[in-house]
Amino acid sequence: MKEECGVFGIWSPQKKTIAEEIYLGLYALQHRGQESCGIAVSCDGVFQHYKHEGLVGEVFNREALDRIGEGNIAVGHVRYSTTGGNNHHNVQPLVVRHMKGNMALCHNGNLVNARSLREKHELNGAIFHGTADTETIVYTIVSERLKASTTEEAVFQTMQQLQGAYSCVLMTATKLIAFRDPFGFRPLCYGRMQDGSYVVSSESCALDTIGAALIRDIDPGEIVIFGKEGIIEDRRLCGNRPALCVFEYIYFARPDSVIEGASVHAARLRAGRFLAQESPVDADVVIGIPDSGIDAALGYAQESGIPYGVGFLKNKYIGRSFIAPDQMTRESAVKIKLNVIAETVRGKRVVLIDDSIVRGTTSERIVRLLRESGAKEVNMRISSPPFRYPCFFGTDVDSQDNLIACRLNTLEEIAADIGTDSLAYLSVNAVHRLTGRQQGMFCDGCFTGKYPIDITENQGKNKFEQPLPPCEPGVRCPNSSSFLCTPRELCP
Amino acid sequence: MKEECGVFGIWSPQKKTIAEEIYLGLYALQHRGQESCGIAVSCDGVFQHYKHEGLVGEVFNREALDRIGEGNIAVGHVRYSTTGGNNHHNVQPLVVRHMKGNMALCHNGNLVNARSLREKHELNGAIFHGTADTETIVYTIVSERLKASTTEEAVFQTMQQLQGAYSCVLMTATKLIAFRDPFGFRPLCYGRMQDGSYVVSSESCALDTIGAALIRDIDPGEIVIFGKEGIIEDRRLCGNRPALCVFEYIYFARPDSVIEGASVHAARLRAGRFLAQESPVDADVVIGIPDSGIDAALGYAQESGIPYGVGFLKNKYIGRSFIAPDQMTRESAVKIKLNVIAETVRGKRVVLIDDSIVRGTTSERIVRLLRESGAKEVNMRISSPPFRYPCFFGTDVDSQDNLIACRLNTLEEIAADIGTDSLAYLSVNAVHRLTGRQQGMFCDGCFTGKYPIDITENQGKNKFEQPLPPCEPGVRCPNSSSFLCTPRELCP
Amino acid sequence: MKEECGVFGIWSPQKKTIAEEIYLGLYALQHRGQESCGIAVSCDGVFQHYKHEGLVGEVFNREALDRIGEGNIAVGHVRYSTTGGNNHHNVQPLVVRHMKGNMALCHNGNLVNARSLREKHELNGAIFHGTADTETIVYTIVSERLKASTTEEAVFQTMQQLQGAYSCVLMTATKLIAFRDPFGFRPLCYGRMQDGSYVVSSESCALDTIGAALIRDIDPGEIVIFGKEGIIEDRRLCGNRPALCVFEYIYFARPDSVIEGASVHAARLRAGRFLAQESPVDADVVIGIPDSGIDAALGYAQESGIPYGVGFLKNKYIGRSFIAPDQMTRESAVKIKLNVIAETVRGKRVVLIDDSIVRGTTSERIVRLLRESGAKEVNMRISSPPFRYPCFFGTDVDSQDNLIACRLNTLEEIAADIGTDSLAYLSVNAVHRLTGRQQGMFCDGCFTGKYPIDITENQGKNKFEQPLPPCEPGVRCPNSSSFLCTPRELCP
Amino acid sequence: MKEECGVFGIWSPQKKTIAEEIYLGLYALQHRGQESCGIAVSCDGVFQHYKHEGLVGEVFNREALDRIGEGNIAVGHVRYSTTGGNNHHNVQPLVVRHMKGNMALCHNGNLVNARSLREKHELNGAIFHGTADTETIVYTIVSERLKASTTEEAVFQTMQQLQGAYSCVLMTATKLIAFRDPFGFRPLCYGRMQDGSYVVSSESCALDTIGAALIRDIDPGEIVIFGKEGIIEDRRLCGNRPALCVFEYIYFARPDSVIEGASVHAARLRAGRFLAQESPVDADVVIGIPDSGIDAALGYAQESGIPYGVGFLKNKYIGRSFIAPDQMTRESAVKIKLNVIAETVRGKRVVLIDDSIVRGTTSERIVRLLRESGAKEVNMRISSPPFRYPCFFGTDVDSQDNLIACRLNTLEEIAADIGTDSLAYLSVNAVHRLTGRQQGMFCDGCFTGKYPIDITENQGKNKFEQPLPPCEPGVRCPNSSSFLCTPRELCP
Repeated sequence: MKEECGVFGIWSPQKKTIAEEIYLGLYALQHRGQESCGIAVSCDGVFQHYKHEGLVGEVFNREALDRIGEGNIAVGHVRYSTTGGNNHHNVQPLVVRHMKGNMALCHNGNLVNARSLREKHELNGAIFHGTADTETIVYTIVSERLKASTTEEAVFQTMQQLQGAYSCVLMTATKLIAFRDPFGFRPLCYGRMQDGSYVVSSESCALDTIGAALIRDIDPGEIVIFGKEGIIEDRRLCGNRPALCVFEYIYFARPDSVIEGASVHAARLRAGRFLAQESPVDADVVIGIPDSGIDAALGYAQESGIPYGVGFLKNKYIGRSFIAPDQMTRESAVKIKLNVIAETVRGKRVVLIDDSIVRGTTSERIVRLLRESGAKEVNMRISSPPFRYPCFFGTDVDSQDNLIACRLNTLEEIAADIGTDSLAYLSVNAVHRLTGRQQGMFCDGCFTGKYPIDITENQGKNKFEQPLPPCEPGVRCPNSSSFLCTPRELCP
Repeated sequence: MKEECGVFGIWSPQKKTIAEEIYLGLYALQHRGQESCGIAVSCDGVFQHYKHEGLVGEVFNREALDRIGEGNIAVGHVRYSTTGGNNHHNVQPLVVRHMKGNMALCHNGNLVNARSLREKHELNGAIFHGTADTETIVYTIVSERLKASTTEEAVFQTMQQLQGAYSCVLMTATKLIAFRDPFGFRPLCYGRMQDGSYVVSSESCALDTIGAALIRDIDPGEIVIFGKEGIIEDRRLCGNRPALCVFEYIYFARPDSVIEGASVHAARLRAGRFLAQESPVDADVVIGIPDSGIDAALGYAQESGIPYGVGFLKNKYIGRSFIAPDQMTRESAVKIKLNVIAETVRGKRVVLIDDSIVRGTTSERIVRLLRESGAKEVNMRISSPPFRYPCFFGTDVDSQDNLIACRLNTLEEIAADIGTDSLAYLSVNAVHRLTGRQQGMFCDGCFTGKYPIDITENQGKNKFEQPLPPCEPGVRCPNSSSFLCTPRELCP
Repeated sequence: MKEECGVFGIWSPQKKTIAEEIYLGLYALQHRGQESCGIAVSCDGVFQHYKHEGLVGEVFNREALDRIGEGNIAVGHVRYSTTGGNNHHNVQPLVVRHMKGNMALCHNGNLVNARSLREKHELNGAIFHGTADTETIVYTIVSERLKASTTEEAVFQTMQQLQGAYSCVLMTATKLIAFRDPFGFRPLCYGRMQDGSYVVSSESCALDTIGAALIRDIDPGEIVIFGKEGIIEDRRLCGNRPALCVFEYIYFARPDSVIEGASVHAARLRAGRFLAQESPVDADVVIGIPDSGIDAALGYAQESGIPYGVGFLKNKYIGRSFIAPDQMTRESAVKIKLNVIAETVRGKRVVLIDDSIVRGTTSERIVRLLRESGAKEVNMRISSPPFRYPCFFGTDVDSQDNLIACRLNTLEEIAADIGTDSLAYLSVNAVHRLTGRQQGMFCDGCFTGKYPIDITENQGKNKFEQPLPPCEPGVRCPNSSSFLCTPRELCP
Repeated sequence: MKEECGVFGIWSPQKKTIAEEIYLGLYALQHRGQESCGIAVSCDGVFQHYKHEGLVGEVFNREALDRIGEGNIAVGHVRYSTTGGNNHHNVQPLVVRHMKGNMALCHNGNLVNARSLREKHELNGAIFHGTADTETIVYTIVSERLKASTTEEAVFQTMQQLQGAYSCVLMTATKLIAFRDPFGFRPLCYGRMQDGSYVVSSESCALDTIGAALIRDIDPGEIVIFGKEGIIEDRRLCGNRPALCVFEYIYFARPDSVIEGASVHAARLRAGRFLAQESPVDADVVIGIPDSGIDAALGYAQESGIPYGVGFLKNKYIGRSFIAPDQMTRESAVKIKLNVIAETVRGKRVVLIDDSIVRGTTSERIVRLLRESGAKEVNMRISSPPFRYPCFFGTDVDSQDNLIACRLNTLEEIAADIGTDSLAYLSVNAVHRLTGRQQGMFCDGCFTGKYPIDITENQGKNKFEQPLPPCEPGVRCPNSSSFLCTPRELCP
């Protein structure tokens, strides 16, 4: 389960070493995407940018930072890590020059009508270089910009054509524009620095990093324009019932972030407490699987009165460069990353908290490790409901065939499969109370299969990327974005 | 003085490791461009490409070659080395996907109406990523392709809109298309391999490398389509008086190439012979400056009867990674690259042959080195006429302010400046006889200022690349491709 | 405060992909040293090795692992990260060929008589390539080996000449030899795999990683030889009162390791409990500074009954490649690495647990961040005594001038300096009870200034590395290892 | 056939950016070795050095040069490229610290008694890190230095123990010492710069590069010491009949170098003239194979009156990074590197000059290419005698099994094998007259099998490098440098 992106932007009333601040912000948002990253800076309207595949710490060195260096507006982006897929054209920010100026766009989310929008532009002669939705958004904004008197008006016209999830920051020569889809699937907030700069970020933790005070979230459907005139809000598209992705609280977001006024850490403690209320168990110690199971475990311990313990040591040096030795069993692959602290579990009845179960194979191995270390009993509690349906709004979930909650029918079967003495999930009802406030503001499509937007277009993740099989010439191509296959050309 | 590019393409009746053959071809064309290179392969219509800044040997390793590997059509490109200018979007082949399929274009040359063409597309919503003319050509072909029934017809429509120099190879899913501007400023030829493949190349030396036999040059204005139906020639735009760049013979092309039926090596020997006829001198030895002065020196020696000698040792290890030490004088910078073989010149009256004089500073240092090594007399002979005018058709010449033939008025002044006992250039008339055949087929604009095409648009080399100064909002922007500057946006 | 090294070795009865197992072991020991690492493998007596500056994941790729690949004996090493000091010759294992065979040595610790030993060898014509003590140990073993009939006898003779801390593994063509200095300053243990291999490691957590069961610690002064004859123990030098470094429990070792039969995690919980007993405080929440303060905080919470909370989010992506921006204040440098979870501390009286205070500057900033996040009161508790004296046995401590416990005289002064409402350290007496068993087995020299070995030679960390000032020729050189400075040579 | 090394050194009366001058010198000596290179600088006795595998332009960047930067004495080295053999310890200069100071040594040549010398040191406890003779020389000098009052005396004592080829420069804290073996197998000369610096170099072409005037060659057996006292010559070991390697003139050295007072270029012209006298032929054109056959071809043309022509274009971009495509035939591998200029040879009777024939396979392919390009007749002339015997003095020749002159008995057989119409080699007698002066000063061992020094020790090139097969324990090891194999240790 992977988040798609993080966006960050700054508008400053005066020139400063703005790239360094974006760099710090991206470091704080790195958990939202590890595939690639980039920064674009506008210095009085002259754009410089630098972007590449890799982590923030790998992509940016002192020389790169100095080269894009000074400016008064800037945007940055982190993108999540796919296997393969080395398409440099998808790395953001997307920086383009059109007839009326420059533009740099950063996007978090996923459109559901990207294909038809893209076809519309291609029929007008457009050439797309990458395969990401972001390029479709850029093309639409540029098209609208040629007709509109301002970029923000072009954004408004564009939003009426886009369907799906998008939390974006857009930089022009003079403005920083933040906009969020009418359902608000992905978070987006802004704050203010002591030097008068405004900062837009996917999460508030990145505001903390550069000393910006959180003002508020950008509302679903809202456009906020930061410029010399101050802040202008365009709320014409606001008013929908929001549908924030609940996994932002459970898994994606950093616990020190505050989303829609609620602390992520507190939401996770609360998830643990709800779990303890809904699915109590008689046990000696509560342990969580690092990193995101820790908070819920503490909540469970607090609510249940069972002592909280540190059950695992996570090897912090295991990263992408780790080579799983050929002879290595899957068990040892887990063990090198996550070793049990036997002292904590030996001879005890354990409550084991995790945020989710995907395929179940890792859970099964962890349960076995606990037993090998002397745990008398392992009772698993999951701080989210079982997910059984795909996400079309920016989360990369495994295929349904692999999901244990789809493969197996009952809790008992799943418990048997992963070898726990007992198993319970959080209820969907509890999910809607995670923030401690109003109910029903979340998208729960991945649990219930009921999505806030109608899903019609086929939505593979890399919908334009794969080479397609040849099709009949001269007829409507069923499997490509080309609607006409001429006699002499194959559709890919 | 720098050449802009080399192009190469193969159409094969069956699949093979075609990328490796392009790789060999690019190695043979490396002298035409050292900035960047790339290869695109079509395997039954599925495109793969790899391109990067750097020499062929730097960009392609075994892994990269294997990745793009097999196919039945392929194109490749080498681009010349500019200082700075790290715009990845200009690296060729340009590979694009449009509504009717894929396309990969390689281009050698320079348009004179790129700006107005580009504006036309931008006004229609197009987004340009790079600054090279090639992207403008691609956009025009794609636009025409949406209206035309075949790619070759789109090429024909496009050629009627392009003005300037272009020798191109274009790959579609099923065809390889070679086309050359109606004046034929840059060379382009094709040949055939024993396995039935057709090969298009900027120069014939690259055909030799992969064992292809030269068939003929693509004629100025001609479109040649290689495909399953065999070879189709479209000669509707042929018939102009040709205007090949004469420096292809004198300097750019490899001596083992044959252009328009004439050996480049023979043309250089002939230049030396003409020089000996036009500007004889009483001397003891004839030496040439490596590499391109060597052949003309041998021709001068043969015609004059004065013995030919080896005057210099060129250090073949000096490349782009050489760091000129801080304390190094310009003299020693020349000496590390080009050492005099004193034995050859000591106590002798020397005839020194070079292909051209640009600023004169290098010539002055070489003459001084010869005298320090004991030459009694240095008589310089140049195997081309003095050039005094800019080139708009794909050669990168120094600014007129720097050209010694512009700065100084007479041969005597130039001779005094570089310290030779005598100096002579080849006549423009002799230039037109270099191939040993018909006269007047060359462009001699850089010697005479008379160009075959009217030059109206301002033609800096990187016309879209430089950040421009701000201009008045709301009026026609005089220094950018944007025709309208809105109040809130600066033109860059 | 930095650990110097980790060592790892395997003896196997049959050939296997032994390098991969060492690789996993080094990953588990990475916390003991991040400067460089290496692996040496013996395959039936043929040695292969690979080592380099960098983390295990940076140094070893699939190709490097495959190249040294198979074997029946192997050793590995991780070394701690110094600034600068790019001396490739210090990277371990040290692999040498002498008259009677090959040898590879890995060493954790620090000698106090390295200088005089080195001089002895140099006077015999020896050439030293690096500056580490390890080379001195190797030279001594090789010298003794020429006289002894076995390598283990040479090790025994060598140990009688070495003074200081050394936990070593030594590989010959047929044996793996582990030896530990008579005081046992640094840990060393061994275990057994199911395939019959014996494994030696600095810490037991690395045994877990490859599925080896811990047998016992190598005793102080013991030599253990693993070979075809099985395990041979040489205990002639055993019997000293041990003097293990107490910071192995408090800070260096991984919490999932077991040293001298005691769990490191349990020792840290116990440190927190002792702190709560010795220095109670009335408060609302106990939080620990990640990573090593977490366990003690939990112990403090358990003993005191005050709720445990998660106070900080540590950014796990901040590594060596992080560039502290020029304009960055020290405060924001702390904040990017360690953000407060405001929800946990707002409006509360906080007990803040850390493992030590070095200069006090970081503590001061963390305390300030807590107050800015709304903490009403900050009571700091340190799970070790104040350290005031240098370590000569393998720990790299800051200079005494910088240590806050040396600069300031009273607890009150220190508390005022770092801005806490109260402050307490763990008592030295409690330190000796950390394992829950016998007392007095630790070295407490850094707290008390009383060392188990007499310190006579001047012991800078890189004693042979720095260029030394010139000294008088012809007299005993006071500041170099050269005892005679001849008239014409400067001592460096 | 490959040269082993090039050495370079500077002694300056004052500090300067001396590393940059060494860098230029190494660029000029790059043809003598492409495997690795290095520079060591002494700045008032403080040594800095930098060395690595790779070409000079790859190893040294601005940062590396600046780091070792300033000084008053410096030495540099280039080493030839072997396949594999990544032993960092063999890269020169070898920089060592001994009891009386520092030392940096650069060596060109090959010892014939390295093994016995090395054993002597190992029996005294010495540890060797690399496998090159140079380390043996260093160890011997250091041992002698402990007994001698000066380094130059230690060099003198060492030279009496060394047998074989060695041209060395040695840097101490205050002196630069150049010494050459009593037979003078490899060249070594020195000169003077205008700033008063003395420069030692393998070849004079490197003196030219930095503006130093050649003074004279270091004589065989001579030690020259450059220091504050000026130049001191120690000629106690001079007087042997010299035995310079004749391939220095024919192949290795740069044509712009002057060795023993004779121009290398002139010697090659003379070789061509002697060939024309000894083996005339009736033909239309004389061509040479680049690079080293060109000069001899010109000499042949001058003597015979047959016109000289340019027969080949050598691709200057083909380097170590070139990947020979899998499907590539050997023929096209030659063609990509060396294309025939058909214009020169078509319909002609050709004299083809090369400096040597090794296996004959490349010659055979070149002859075939010439015929394919239309040559009517190909008469091959070789500017050296056939070599049939190994070299023990620093040249890396193919094994005798592969040498065509060993495989085949008569000129006719060789001519038939490579497909020439006629074939002739230069006579050994002519070789001794190449400098135009005295006879018999050369080593002609590779032609005659008669060497100036007795060859007793087995002399593989990498004599200590290969893993050796196990041998009987306890007896004198026949195939290793270890004289005693103990029961428990294998000899490698």
